[in-house]
Amino acid sequence: MTRYALLLEYDGAAFHGWQRQPAMFSVQQALEEAAAKLNHGAPATTIAAGRTDAGVHAEGQVAELHLARDIAPDRLRLALNFHLRPAPCVVRAVALAPEGWSARFSAIRRAYRYVILNRSARPALAAGQVWHIPHAMDAAAMQTAAQSLLGHHDFSAFRATSCQAKSAVRTLERLDVSRDGERIIIEAEARSFLHHQVRNLVGTLVPVGRGQRPVTWPRAVLDARERRLAGETAPPEGLCFMRVEYPQDLALHWA
Amino acid sequence: MTRYALLLEYDGAAFHGWQRQPAMFSVQQALEEAAAKLNHGAPATTIAAGRTDAGVHAEGQVAELHLARDIAPDRLRLALNFHLRPAPCVVRAVALAPEGWSARFSAIRRAYRYVILNRSARPALAAGQVWHIPHAMDAAAMQTAAQSLLGHHDFSAFRATSCQAKSAVRTLERLDVSRDGERIIIEAEARSFLHHQVRNLVGTLVPVGRGQRPVTWPRAVLDARERRLAGETAPPEGLCFMRVEYPQDLALHWA
Repeated sequence: MTRYALLLEYDGAAFHGWQRQPAMFSVQQALEEAAAKLNHGAPATTIAAGRTDAGVHAEGQVAELHLARDIAPDRLRLALNFHLRPAPCVVRAVALAPEGWSARFSAIRRAYRYVILNRSARPALAAGQVWHIPHAMDAAAMQTAAQSLLGHHDFSAFRATSCQAKSAVRTLERLDVSRDGERIIIEAEARSFLHHQVRNLVGTLVPVGRGQRPVTWPRAVLDARERRLAGETAPPEGLCFMRVEYPQDLALHWA
Repeated sequence: MTRYALLLEYDGAAFHGWQRQPAMFSVQQALEEAAAKLNHGAPATTIAAGRTDAGVHAEGQVAELHLARDIAPDRLRLALNFHLRPAPCVVRAVALAPEGWSARFSAIRRAYRYVILNRSARPALAAGQVWHIPHAMDAAAMQTAAQSLLGHHDFSAFRATSCQAKSAVRTLERLDVSRDGERIIIEAEARSFLHHQVRNLVGTLVPVGRGQRPVTWPRAVLDARERRLAGETAPPEGLCFMRVEYPQDLALHWA
């Protein structure tokens, strides 16, 4: 048994999320079917750093792959990419998994980016990769509100009802909102996130940006710890899983 | 008769280029059909600043629209976007055309961007919007070579055989090559370009980047003025028409 780390990019529009499920095509299924072809036909199993929802994209998802065979990382990358075609999922790089490394449990930081296209016209070139909001928005107000949410809190107000985590306490390390022309970019970082946490945070900052709620509102929602008080869940297509970090002693050497 | 300027974004993959032609769906046809619905059913005509080829994208194409009716620019933008659905072409902004302004002939600068995805794995998220080159490339060498092509020259070596311009003399104002992670970005600016000029310039810089030709080669190709000596025409999907500039006295006031 050899364990590998895979650095993945995928277009979430083509998949019903990361996780395998009956009668729905998932990233995990695409990857495990490609890997099985290199595994003497035996099933190959994968575990992701973060289980992205249906429609959510990834530029830097990390997954762990268990294979019965021993293949050099660069050959494994080429072979997996060959078998993944034409699904819009690729292995950007492969590393041998260090002893004791887990894609999911060893991660010390996860980074997500959410993109809002803030202009009158619907997206043409970025269709499917942004949340289109045609109303005037104040990104600076969103940034002020976002800073009030940083730190170690009970994020019950921002977790999906389906969230299975035992505790809703998380440490939000970064939540930055900035404008780049017609785009509003929201960058979120934490050791781990609750289910829908980033999308619910975005959905709660948007009414502030639109001037419908004061900049103090998101913090009041956080403190109340009630999901029904928060904003809507932002649509999945604006979200992209950007990066996973591991501690120095479990550093991955990508090939 | 009222004349408008339209600022357009489109995904070139969905169209057989800008120009109307029989039995092929073009951006011009999509736009003129949408405009005819606002023109009491009478045909509406458009002229573009630059006639992009099949597969070439635009973030900032400018077109001139002639309508029998007088409609406020912001209402015209909304109405055209309504009728353009679901084609991946949108009107980002509309302006009243100043007296004496021509989308094509008044332009004093056109800016294009070409994107190469330079990594082993094929594109997933950027599929259809980059040229994928998996081989190692030296962007700095490409930049050095690009600088030798700037200025006022006979660009016969870089024009399509189908190019209808009377003269091949153009002034290349900018040709910058830079690396942004896995991407190599080529930015080209001139008052006007010959047919396929940007794609042929890119196709001639690529062998330099790959180390197959010296940095002095593109200039030697320019001086020889023979198309057959230059590199291949880079594929259309990496190219995007970014921006058109007009002189101060014909400035457009976008709404």
